Amino acid sequence: MNAIAQAAATVANPITCTLDFEQDGVQHGFLKLPYSRDDSAWGAVMIPLTVVRNGNGPTALLTGGNHGDEYEGPVALSKLAQQLQAGQVSGRVIIVPFMNTPAFQAGTRTSPIDRGNLNRSFPGRPDGSVTEKIADYFRRTLLPLADIVLDIHSGGRTLDFLPFAACHVLPDKAQQARCEAGMQAFAAPYSMRMLELDAQAMYDTAAEEQGKVFITTELGGGGTSTAKSVALAERGVRNVLIHAGILAGEVEQGETTLLDMPDGDCFIASEHDGLLEMCRDLGETVRQGEVIARIHDIRRTGSAPVEYRARRSGLLAARHFPGLVQCGDTLAVIADVLA
Amino acid sequence: MNAIAQAAATVANPITCTLDFEQDGVQHGFLKLPYSRDDSAWGAVMIPLTVVRNGNGPTALLTGGNHGDEYEGPVALSKLAQQLQAGQVSGRVIIVPFMNTPAFQAGTRTSPIDRGNLNRSFPGRPDGSVTEKIADYFRRTLLPLADIVLDIHSGGRTLDFLPFAACHVLPDKAQQARCEAGMQAFAAPYSMRMLELDAQAMYDTAAEEQGKVFITTELGGGGTSTAKSVALAERGVRNVLIHAGILAGEVEQGETTLLDMPDGDCFIASEHDGLLEMCRDLGETVRQGEVIARIHDIRRTGSAPVEYRARRSGLLAARHFPGLVQCGDTLAVIADVLA
Amino acid sequence: MNAIAQAAATVANPITCTLDFEQDGVQHGFLKLPYSRDDSAWGAVMIPLTVVRNGNGPTALLTGGNHGDEYEGPVALSKLAQQLQAGQVSGRVIIVPFMNTPAFQAGTRTSPIDRGNLNRSFPGRPDGSVTEKIADYFRRTLLPLADIVLDIHSGGRTLDFLPFAACHVLPDKAQQARCEAGMQAFAAPYSMRMLELDAQAMYDTAAEEQGKVFITTELGGGGTSTAKSVALAERGVRNVLIHAGILAGEVEQGETTLLDMPDGDCFIASEHDGLLEMCRDLGETVRQGEVIARIHDIRRTGSAPVEYRARRSGLLAARHFPGLVQCGDTLAVIADVLA
Amino acid sequence: MNAIAQAAATVANPITCTLDFEQDGVQHGFLKLPYSRDDSAWGAVMIPLTVVRNGNGPTALLTGGNHGDEYEGPVALSKLAQQLQAGQVSGRVIIVPFMNTPAFQAGTRTSPIDRGNLNRSFPGRPDGSVTEKIADYFRRTLLPLADIVLDIHSGGRTLDFLPFAACHVLPDKAQQARCEAGMQAFAAPYSMRMLELDAQAMYDTAAEEQGKVFITTELGGGGTSTAKSVALAERGVRNVLIHAGILAGEVEQGETTLLDMPDGDCFIASEHDGLLEMCRDLGETVRQGEVIARIHDIRRTGSAPVEYRARRSGLLAARHFPGLVQCGDTLAVIADVLA
Amino acid sequence: MNAIAQAAATVANPITCTLDFEQDGVQHGFLKLPYSRDDSAWGAVMIPLTVVRNGNGPTALLTGGNHGDEYEGPVALSKLAQQLQAGQVSGRVIIVPFMNTPAFQAGTRTSPIDRGNLNRSFPGRPDGSVTEKIADYFRRTLLPLADIVLDIHSGGRTLDFLPFAACHVLPDKAQQARCEAGMQAFAAPYSMRMLELDAQAMYDTAAEEQGKVFITTELGGGGTSTAKSVALAERGVRNVLIHAGILAGEVEQGETTLLDMPDGDCFIASEHDGLLEMCRDLGETVRQGEVIARIHDIRRTGSAPVEYRARRSGLLAARHFPGLVQCGDTLAVIADVLA
Amino acid sequence: MNAIAQAAATVANPITCTLDFEQDGVQHGFLKLPYSRDDSAWGAVMIPLTVVRNGNGPTALLTGGNHGDEYEGPVALSKLAQQLQAGQVSGRVIIVPFMNTPAFQAGTRTSPIDRGNLNRSFPGRPDGSVTEKIADYFRRTLLPLADIVLDIHSGGRTLDFLPFAACHVLPDKAQQARCEAGMQAFAAPYSMRMLELDAQAMYDTAAEEQGKVFITTELGGGGTSTAKSVALAERGVRNVLIHAGILAGEVEQGETTLLDMPDGDCFIASEHDGLLEMCRDLGETVRQGEVIARIHDIRRTGSAPVEYRARRSGLLAARHFPGLVQCGDTLAVIADVLA
Repeated sequence: MNAIAQAAATVANPITCTLDFEQDGVQHGFLKLPYSRDDSAWGAVMIPLTVVRNGNGPTALLTGGNHGDEYEGPVALSKLAQQLQAGQVSGRVIIVPFMNTPAFQAGTRTSPIDRGNLNRSFPGRPDGSVTEKIADYFRRTLLPLADIVLDIHSGGRTLDFLPFAACHVLPDKAQQARCEAGMQAFAAPYSMRMLELDAQAMYDTAAEEQGKVFITTELGGGGTSTAKSVALAERGVRNVLIHAGILAGEVEQGETTLLDMPDGDCFIASEHDGLLEMCRDLGETVRQGEVIARIHDIRRTGSAPVEYRARRSGLLAARHFPGLVQCGDTLAVIADVLA
Repeated sequence: MNAIAQAAATVANPITCTLDFEQDGVQHGFLKLPYSRDDSAWGAVMIPLTVVRNGNGPTALLTGGNHGDEYEGPVALSKLAQQLQAGQVSGRVIIVPFMNTPAFQAGTRTSPIDRGNLNRSFPGRPDGSVTEKIADYFRRTLLPLADIVLDIHSGGRTLDFLPFAACHVLPDKAQQARCEAGMQAFAAPYSMRMLELDAQAMYDTAAEEQGKVFITTELGGGGTSTAKSVALAERGVRNVLIHAGILAGEVEQGETTLLDMPDGDCFIASEHDGLLEMCRDLGETVRQGEVIARIHDIRRTGSAPVEYRARRSGLLAARHFPGLVQCGDTLAVIADVLA
Repeated sequence: MNAIAQAAATVANPITCTLDFEQDGVQHGFLKLPYSRDDSAWGAVMIPLTVVRNGNGPTALLTGGNHGDEYEGPVALSKLAQQLQAGQVSGRVIIVPFMNTPAFQAGTRTSPIDRGNLNRSFPGRPDGSVTEKIADYFRRTLLPLADIVLDIHSGGRTLDFLPFAACHVLPDKAQQARCEAGMQAFAAPYSMRMLELDAQAMYDTAAEEQGKVFITTELGGGGTSTAKSVALAERGVRNVLIHAGILAGEVEQGETTLLDMPDGDCFIASEHDGLLEMCRDLGETVRQGEVIARIHDIRRTGSAPVEYRARRSGLLAARHFPGLVQCGDTLAVIADVLA
Repeated sequence: MNAIAQAAATVANPITCTLDFEQDGVQHGFLKLPYSRDDSAWGAVMIPLTVVRNGNGPTALLTGGNHGDEYEGPVALSKLAQQLQAGQVSGRVIIVPFMNTPAFQAGTRTSPIDRGNLNRSFPGRPDGSVTEKIADYFRRTLLPLADIVLDIHSGGRTLDFLPFAACHVLPDKAQQARCEAGMQAFAAPYSMRMLELDAQAMYDTAAEEQGKVFITTELGGGGTSTAKSVALAERGVRNVLIHAGILAGEVEQGETTLLDMPDGDCFIASEHDGLLEMCRDLGETVRQGEVIARIHDIRRTGSAPVEYRARRSGLLAARHFPGLVQCGDTLAVIADVLA
Repeated sequence: MNAIAQAAATVANPITCTLDFEQDGVQHGFLKLPYSRDDSAWGAVMIPLTVVRNGNGPTALLTGGNHGDEYEGPVALSKLAQQLQAGQVSGRVIIVPFMNTPAFQAGTRTSPIDRGNLNRSFPGRPDGSVTEKIADYFRRTLLPLADIVLDIHSGGRTLDFLPFAACHVLPDKAQQARCEAGMQAFAAPYSMRMLELDAQAMYDTAAEEQGKVFITTELGGGGTSTAKSVALAERGVRNVLIHAGILAGEVEQGETTLLDMPDGDCFIASEHDGLLEMCRDLGETVRQGEVIARIHDIRRTGSAPVEYRARRSGLLAARHFPGLVQCGDTLAVIADVLA
Repeated sequence: MNAIAQAAATVANPITCTLDFEQDGVQHGFLKLPYSRDDSAWGAVMIPLTVVRNGNGPTALLTGGNHGDEYEGPVALSKLAQQLQAGQVSGRVIIVPFMNTPAFQAGTRTSPIDRGNLNRSFPGRPDGSVTEKIADYFRRTLLPLADIVLDIHSGGRTLDFLPFAACHVLPDKAQQARCEAGMQAFAAPYSMRMLELDAQAMYDTAAEEQGKVFITTELGGGGTSTAKSVALAERGVRNVLIHAGILAGEVEQGETTLLDMPDGDCFIASEHDGLLEMCRDLGETVRQGEVIARIHDIRRTGSAPVEYRARRSGLLAARHFPGLVQCGDTLAVIADVLA
């Protein structure tokens, strides 16, 4: 947190919550962020949330829609919010299925109000943009309430991923171990321990800096969800709540493959605009030097496509989703299989 | 063709082709459509095409990008245009990989110039909008050159399909049989004989009215393509050219399942806005009365989702792709399995 | 109807109704207009409607939202649609509270899809723009079902009116008398018999050409409604249904002042851009030569405003609503008081 | 003023004034703010102002157009700027009728350049956005010149108010008394002493922090003005200048009703999107528990509207103006009548 | 004129003129075209014009702003409209400096309302788009009043021309000779007799079909004008009015070079996007095979530019103006020097 | 550099360079700035650059496209980047032809991403907007590598200049002398020693503060370039590299006229909107009091234009380029001729 953020931290966040976090039972309501604008002078951004509490016990903070075009989290958490009953829990579950609500309602990664990428807006500012105000509220109000934090991501409209849960390599190894245990509990088909090279401004980092158990995921992509990918999310959420001691029962284990993305050679980036031809699909094993993708000219026929080759061997774990590609886009990610 | 179109038909189409359709060899060039606009007073829409000709013989007209956000056709046909050599063909192949070029270059279903949906712009007008001019040129210049016409579609950014080739139920049963033979040659995993309820203004109809063998496809969707879906397209194109007697060799057969969509009960349409939860995935068999999809409120948590149920049993053959849905959108299509 | 419209009239309108107009009882549903677009390839415009029927008898067609930023009609008709019970009616009531649904949902006079002004899109075209398709459906499907047609207008975001009901001077004097009786039944504070100078392309004309009893209104403006203006609309709707013999009871009469706008001198139009200062308010009596409005420069201070004077004496019946005005805008309308 | 503002305060504001504040007589000119942009590399935002000075004496700073869609201030002050003569004043009057000129010329609450809400941009920054530069100039250059400050507001396009003048509850009770005297002098039909719960970043606060007599108003709304509402503004301005000793004559008193909005229960906010039906109008007395407004579904007919009830008794003092409403919008404000 | 236009011709054009064409003296006013839209329900497009008449005699119709980004005509004709006195003329001068007023006020070639290119919208339609209505009014109302028609063009924002006056090769040689005499009278530095290959929908053609003497020009370009280019326009206008017998005095002759553009080889069109490097400038003599322009890649450095060569020798008479170029744009035009 | 910038300076800039600045030879590559956005979650802004190095020696940093609509720099530097061979240089040349790449590719002065004016974004911020990140990278990474810095500007789409090279009046007179020598070496037709009144946030200042030899230019304008203006740029670049000892050979001298803009009276700014008539052209000598420009009303004909007169005598050195002008725009600049 730099000097600006420190100054900001003395200002109250304008968001109010219509619910009482300390009240037992199921409550549905809103985080209300006043937002004066041309089409409503006294309007507000309303972020729906549900709090389910039953006596003392650990608190889980469950979020989806951190990026507005990722759907497994919003579906799984909307269902949970509607179904979870107070009697089922010990402690508290705070469910925010559409974290960056303006982005989610617009179906876009970033907020239509300020183009804010919420996951790159931390620590946030109480007197900043709408997205920065949301970040500040999560950092200063919601995260301190939580013991375990699960933030469900997918690839969104422009990326597609093999489904995995992840945790970060952290300086505090005890904390890292707790996070890894949470990731294992999620029981996604793939799991990844990530060394975040650029952790700056992320929600992840804000949670981890407060010592929380933090679990994140990538459960698909393309700006859609499927019955299958939602089922993964629902099982993962349930497992994490059981693991945290909030729900009774046993974690439903599945097989998981441990992946790693050890360095920059994993990433293949485009230096051309054009029509993308993927030569290999997600989940396939590729070898160093193999052609992974071609980019065809969209201005004329007859010219040879540009070829992009794997710089390392591994599993094709992520890809650019749309049929067209721009110079600078990440085309594909190749991961190491650890186990 | 109505009175307006008849009047229009006496006007010359302003599109010129930079190639000579009667010249042997491989030529790459453009259909050039003058287009005066604010950012270029003497500009043009340039539609790339390739003509490969070797003596007399049948002519195949191969098109992709009729809708600008469908990618199997553009990739397979860009590759063919770059690789096909004159010595390989008997007759002529006309390849237009990005039929509605402005839409394709923008990555959108319809043209950014006039929001024209090319496949609903036939018969077109030589003095109409840019999209109508393209339609008129295909109808009056390119289609008459062809014996067999293959138009490769996919679902685009907002639909996803099981991969199938298709032909239409036609009044001329001999023509229909030739079309079915072409569809079988394409050898997609699924095949569909369609009674087009609303054939008005389609490219398909324009081709069929001229007595052509016409084959269309749906090879995936979501605004992307995969190594697998492109391979289907490439095999299908090669097969069709062999079937037409233009390429030598034998059609590479695969297993195909014959589907039918006999009536309106196949289509499940949304009467709500919201977050879409698909309860069944593409290719699954569903039973009448089963919940196929739910729509969750994106304004609040805690309210029960709306359920949509199958009105008939069959195979889930198509679905709405994006994670959000609007009132009026088609959620899913359930097809009969014929064979 | 010109030649183009005649040609179009042989084409079926693509709109389907989810309700059965001949079924007794209360039905809520949609007019469904297929609309393929970038964000939904198989989408539709869904126009909500309610049909209440109880045996044989006259049919009233009640509409609001012909212009999308006028609210008395949509509110009064939404309430009627929710409250009216089949047992209360003799005959049939067809209620379409948001006639140009895309415009209404956007809060704009014209459609965001094609900028169509529905009330200037008649006779419409079944193969035209979305707005033209709606017009064609009303003209060829809904109007023929009706005996009496009430279309509730207000001034919208950019005009404000004294509240009045109106009918037109018609060539068929018997029809005109029936329309006047309907207008009187509506019992607005003001009533107006209008000689429509430019009746071309209006819904009014389409209805009148089919011999229907047609009543229209202007019930306020500014893009809002009030408890008072909605009450006028509700009373008027009830009165008209009683007058038509569909609802039992007696027409609740109020005092009405009969107005006339005999010629072009009634209209004061701006030839300047600027900041509008109205010198007289709606409902005030003004004298010829009086300053009605001033337009102030918005680029600088200190320059004298331009003055606009009444060209005739009368009642200030309508005004430009927004605080800024553009060259060409109608500033004010002065009506004759007949009774 | 926080650390950032402190740093900024050492930078000169780029705005220059084409007038001399110390010169006697009437001057019309501009505040000129250099603004380099795509359509004018060496362009400027030009804020019109008038200075009328006649020897020593108090200075009044009169502003309108703080929000760009509020019109009573701009009209009354444009007229004053054009009519006021130096011989009429003792001291100085600084008139800025369109404070946020870019917003005013666009007819929007906020600036089209940076979406800045000027009244939430204080203390401003000399090296910030265009709106922040304007705020900084008012705070550091214009406010220090003034003894009494009158900022004329109305509801704008999205709110409507009973007409009132207002002052704030201030820590310095002597200052507060001077402000109240100014408010009383304005002589609006209603007057309000406000405890600003969230005074941060307001022009009001910037003026009050410098010890100025500060008066604000709300004189109507809806993005329009009327002959009547402008007359209120003109009388108020004249009264305030007389009260300040700048104009000769006597304050023209009118009856005023003293209102209070003591707590959050005064505000009724929407938690739904839809079509707004106000059940009570501005100026009516309402009782706790009464239905104040209903919100109707705009997607379908036949569903029951949501009802919003008064949480306290009082006078309906403000309302949401447009016919449609969004989740989070303030629907209505109920005020206490003190006298 | 096709069948549609014929049908349309029976409908009255909604444009009214605030002036009396038959009245002697100087009149300034408007063509008023009602235009109902979201921001003004009862608004209008107002096209300024001036009529100067003095007894019987020939009528000249002088127009600028046919394309909205061409400035020599608007400046020269604005000056003429302000300065010309009735006593100076014999007959009548009708001056419309901003023919496509919406385009002119927006500074764009085409209309911001409907993207209409006025010079490609003839014969127009009285019930068509705003631009088509303007075309119809010129064709059916203004052109019939005129004996001689001068339409002043320049290159606009995206083209630059050597300054020339022009007439067309016409089937009626006597008419052509009258047009040539008018072109010679204009006395531009260059003159061009054009065989319009695609005369469809042009204002030129509409005037010529009515047997009028029609003169057009290209007087520069780039979306600007200079003291020098405006002087050319002013001299040309004066000369044409003298030539027509409307103004007294003698035509001020200058030297003119006669140019010809005999075939399509004159035009060099781009088949690439990129950064344009012109290798020769306007007015230079070039030889066949010479490099005229290069296009550089804007995505990367180090790749060789594409070269475009002259396909014929001649004078560089026109060029693409902006620094960037798109595939399909006309890069340059090479003209033959006849004399 | 203020406190905020100081804080920012401790954060690493996210831009990486794909080249090795210390490697001998010619390298073409990119500055890669990660930019996550709605249409590419893992995308990047790619700024092309070329590094040519041959052993030890001075480093020249050559830039174009600081403003995205200025073309002499991008053309001359694209050509240099493609042609320069390592064997020709002693030391190092770093070529960035499109400094603000997003602006350049959009053809606009400022960035389409954040509307950033790069030349007013220094010192920049590593955690700021895209434009601020580019500024920070130049300031902290590229400028320190350089001995001599040449930044090639022109007027862009909205200004036109006489071609000149320039240096600044600097506190360090030895540095100023070195800069003047560089300016003289560039050998533009005009040269200017500028006292930058508002040097804040400029690239120039960032370079000069690091003690670099800094040369800037204005080589034309209007958003285009010509063979002639590009030739000036190419000669200037070559001369500067020779002057710096990096290229062999002799500086090719031309005649240059020394200009000065001593005070604010040089600038004529518009206080009106309208149609611009320049009465004098670039390069002409004007006298104080002479009419330089007129602004005509675009809303009506017949009103007298506003005249703008020279406030000093001198050479017309710059002008507003577009045909329309807005209140606040700089119309013209009149320079003193020193030699």
